Amino acid sequence: MAINVTVWGENVHEEREEEVRRRYPEGMHGQIARGLGDDLGERVRVRTATLQEPEHGLTEKVLAETDVLTWWGHAAHEEVSDEVVARVHERVLGGMGLLVLHSAHFSKIFRVLMGTTCTLNWRDGGERELVWTIEPSHPIAEGVPNPLVIEEQETYGEPFGIPAPDELVFVSSFGGGDVFRSGCCFRRGRGRVFYFSPGDQDYPVYYHEGVRRVLANAVLWAAPVGGPGVPLSNANTPITW
Amino acid sequence: MAINVTVWGENVHEEREEEVRRRYPEGMHGQIARGLGDDLGERVRVRTATLQEPEHGLTEKVLAETDVLTWWGHAAHEEVSDEVVARVHERVLGGMGLLVLHSAHFSKIFRVLMGTTCTLNWRDGGERELVWTIEPSHPIAEGVPNPLVIEEQETYGEPFGIPAPDELVFVSSFGGGDVFRSGCCFRRGRGRVFYFSPGDQDYPVYYHEGVRRVLANAVLWAAPVGGPGVPLSNANTPITW
Amino acid sequence: MAINVTVWGENVHEEREEEVRRRYPEGMHGQIARGLGDDLGERVRVRTATLQEPEHGLTEKVLAETDVLTWWGHAAHEEVSDEVVARVHERVLGGMGLLVLHSAHFSKIFRVLMGTTCTLNWRDGGERELVWTIEPSHPIAEGVPNPLVIEEQETYGEPFGIPAPDELVFVSSFGGGDVFRSGCCFRRGRGRVFYFSPGDQDYPVYYHEGVRRVLANAVLWAAPVGGPGVPLSNANTPITW
Amino acid sequence: MAINVTVWGENVHEEREEEVRRRYPEGMHGQIARGLGDDLGERVRVRTATLQEPEHGLTEKVLAETDVLTWWGHAAHEEVSDEVVARVHERVLGGMGLLVLHSAHFSKIFRVLMGTTCTLNWRDGGERELVWTIEPSHPIAEGVPNPLVIEEQETYGEPFGIPAPDELVFVSSFGGGDVFRSGCCFRRGRGRVFYFSPGDQDYPVYYHEGVRRVLANAVLWAAPVGGPGVPLSNANTPITW
Repeated sequence: MAINVTVWGENVHEEREEEVRRRYPEGMHGQIARGLGDDLGERVRVRTATLQEPEHGLTEKVLAETDVLTWWGHAAHEEVSDEVVARVHERVLGGMGLLVLHSAHFSKIFRVLMGTTCTLNWRDGGERELVWTIEPSHPIAEGVPNPLVIEEQETYGEPFGIPAPDELVFVSSFGGGDVFRSGCCFRRGRGRVFYFSPGDQDYPVYYHEGVRRVLANAVLWAAPVGGPGVPLSNANTPITW
Repeated sequence: MAINVTVWGENVHEEREEEVRRRYPEGMHGQIARGLGDDLGERVRVRTATLQEPEHGLTEKVLAETDVLTWWGHAAHEEVSDEVVARVHERVLGGMGLLVLHSAHFSKIFRVLMGTTCTLNWRDGGERELVWTIEPSHPIAEGVPNPLVIEEQETYGEPFGIPAPDELVFVSSFGGGDVFRSGCCFRRGRGRVFYFSPGDQDYPVYYHEGVRRVLANAVLWAAPVGGPGVPLSNANTPITW
Repeated sequence: MAINVTVWGENVHEEREEEVRRRYPEGMHGQIARGLGDDLGERVRVRTATLQEPEHGLTEKVLAETDVLTWWGHAAHEEVSDEVVARVHERVLGGMGLLVLHSAHFSKIFRVLMGTTCTLNWRDGGERELVWTIEPSHPIAEGVPNPLVIEEQETYGEPFGIPAPDELVFVSSFGGGDVFRSGCCFRRGRGRVFYFSPGDQDYPVYYHEGVRRVLANAVLWAAPVGGPGVPLSNANTPITW
Repeated sequence: MAINVTVWGENVHEEREEEVRRRYPEGMHGQIARGLGDDLGERVRVRTATLQEPEHGLTEKVLAETDVLTWWGHAAHEEVSDEVVARVHERVLGGMGLLVLHSAHFSKIFRVLMGTTCTLNWRDGGERELVWTIEPSHPIAEGVPNPLVIEEQETYGEPFGIPAPDELVFVSSFGGGDVFRSGCCFRRGRGRVFYFSPGDQDYPVYYHEGVRRVLANAVLWAAPVGGPGVPLSNANTPITW
C-alpha cells in the first residue's frame, strides 16, 4: 500500500518575494511534493497543504489520512494556530512520521516535540554546505553522495538547542567553518521525527538530486511501522494545556 | 559554595486528607526538604515552595537563586499557571537542575520538557517495589542498596511515554509483575533533569533511607556545572507561545 | 528477494543431555530454524550450522551468503575458534545482522562486539518471566503480546555488563523479583545486533509463539539495508590482533 | 584527595624523528603530563609511562594506583602486548577513567573497548581545525573557547567507525571541508572513556591552551565516582580469551 504524504508549506516567501516565486513557481511545497512523487512513484500518494488554507489544510480528516507529514516554515511560525499544532503533535505521538525542514527548527511543532529552545547560530552568506554521512548504514543515508555538496546555502551553526538525537545521520560543514548536526532522528511516542537542515528559500536546494534522495529516504523511514493507517494507542493522550 | 535547593510541593493531599497529613505533618515537601538538609548538611541550602503561595512560591527571584528544583504534584497539575511553568522551563534550559518525583510525571513542566504524553500504566495495590540499579557506576546510584526495597507503593508500569532517557539508572519491578523505568536522566538545554518514580502520598516513602539517598545523590548530580549561579546563555530563549 | 538466515547452534546440551534432546529432537537450532521458516515463509531462506561442523559451519562462503546470523551458545563458548569469531565480527561490522540469544550473552562474538564484561546475575529456579514492551512502536515489538508470558525460565538479573543499548525494546521481570533488559538493539559498524534473553535449554522457550514472533521480527529488523548482499565497505577492516 | 593520573606515551616518533624531538623534548607524554600538572595543580598526581619500559610501564601496581589513564599511540600499536591491553581493559571496566588521544583511535585498547573498526578518513595537509562545542553544559566543555582554533593539524574525517557515543561533546571542521566527531564520551562498565582527536606528533597541539583545558576537564570528568581507589566490582570479570 502507498504511503500517504502531506507536504506542508508556509507559503509566505513565495507569495511576498518575486525572486522566491521565480525559483519555486509552485511554491517550495510544490517542488518538495513533486520531487517525492517523481522519486518514489507508486510507493507514495502525495498532497500539499499550506498555512493559508482553512485549518492550514491540516484538518482532522487530512491528518487521519496522513502517514508522513513534511513541514517547512520560516516567516510565520506564530501564525500557525495552537489548535492545529496540538492536533499534529497528538498525531505524531500516535505514529505519524514528521520531517522537519530547515528553518522549521523554530516551528511550534518542532519546539513542542523537543521541549528545548531549538535555537542555533546562523548567517546568510551563500556559503557552500557539505553534508557528511555519519552513519553510512542508516536507511536515510542510502544512496546519498558523501559528501552531499550544496553550492550555496544559508549557514547554520552549533550549538543547536535540541535533545541529543536518537540517531545522528548527517553533520554539515560550511565555507565559513561552522558545523551543524544537519540530519537528526528522534523517536517520540510512536512517531518518528527527522530534522534535515538544508533548504533555504533563497537557494534552489529542493531541486538538488541528493537532497531529494534524502527526503525520499526519510519518508520511507518515517512511515509508521505496520504500514499506513496503524491504529493509534488510546494511551497516547495529547498535551492539552 | 552550597547548592541552593528549592523543594516544591503541590500540598493538596496534605491539606485535604487527614491520613496524608498524619503521615507528613509538615507536608511531603517538608519531609523531602528535611531529608536533603539532614543528608547533605552544609553542601545545600534548602527552602520549600508550594502551589498555594503567590506565584506558587516560584518567583523570578526564588528561581534565580535556585540551583536545583524538586517537583512533586498529583491532584492539581492544571492549577499550576502556565506563566510559572514557562519560567521554570526557561530556567531549566538555562542550567537549573530539576528532580521530577512520582506522579509529577504528568506535571506540566515535565510534559513540556519531554514533548511526549508522559503516560504510564498504574494501579494502587500497595505492592512491594524493588528498585534495581542498572548503571552501578552512576553518581545517583552511589551507596544505594541493590535492590532498594520499598514495602508498599503504588504500581507504575510500562510503556512510559517519554523519549529514551539519556541515562537509565534504575528499573523497578512490582509485586504484581510490572516493570518501570524508575530512574531516568535527561539533559535538556544546559539543565539536567532526573525523574524518580517512588513516592506516593499514601505511603511513607520519603522517610525511606534508600530513597533519601537517591534524592541527595540526584541533587548533587543535577547541580549546574560551574557551581551555583552559572550564567545563562543568551541563546537559550524560552518557548513563549 | 529472500533474507538468508543462518541459525547457529552450539549443540552441546542436546548431545549430552537426554532431557534436552527430548525437548529439542532436532536441536535448539533446529527448532529456531523451523520457527523462522514457518513464521516468515518465503521472506527467508534458513539454514543451520553447529559448533561440531568444520569451521563450525561458518565458512567464508556461508557467511558471505548470510544476511542474518542467529547465535545460541552456553557450555562451549571457549571452543569456538578465534578465527571464526574474527570472521563473524568482520562480517557484522560489514552489515550482516546478528541475533544473540540467551546465554550467548557470554559468547566470544558478543563480548568482542560489546567490549564489556557482558556479565549478569542469574539463578535457575524455573521462575515465571514477563517480557514487557518498552518501545511499543519498535518493529521488533510488533504483534508481540504485552507482557509476553513465559511460564518457566532461568532468571537473569541486572546489572547486565553491556554498553547502553541504542534502543531498549523489552525489559523482563521474574517471579523472584529481578528485572533484566531482555531485548536490546545495538548498531555496530554497518551491522545491527539484537540481544534477546529468553531461551534456556531447560525450558521449551523456542516453541513459544510470542518468542517466535520476536525472533521473526528481529530477523526482518536486522537484515542489511539495501537488501541481501549489500556490498561491504572497504574501510571496515577487522580487528586482527 | 588527589586524582592519580598516568600519562602513557608510545614514545616512538620522539625517539626516531629529530623534528618531533625538538617539538617535544620530553616526549609528547612529557608535555601532556606537564600541562595537566600545571593546570590542575594539587588536584592531581601525574606520572608517565611509555612503551619501552618493562610491561610498558603499566604494571599491576601502577594501574592499581591509577584513577585516570591517558593513551597516545600511533606507530607501534601492534607492539603493545595483549596482556597489558587486557589488564588496562579490565581496569577500565572496573572504574578507571581513560582518555584516548588522536591516533590512539586505532590502539588495541580503544578497539577492544569499542568492538568496532575505529577506522576514519585522514590526510596530512596541515589544515586548520575548528573544534566546535556541541554540548555547552558538558563539564568537558567548561571554559573551552568555541570554536577552539588549532592552526595546523592532521585532518580526520567521517565516517568514524565507532558505536554512537553516549555523549557527543565536540565536532571539528577542517580547512579541507571534512567534519569529525572530535570529542566523544563512552561509559563502559564502571569506567568513563573520552576520545579526543586533536594531537598529531607533527604539530605542537599539546602546548595549545584550549587543548590543555579540554584534557584537564576530561581528567576531572573521567575520574571514578567515589574518588580515587573506588573498589572494583567482583562481577566485572575481564575478557580473557
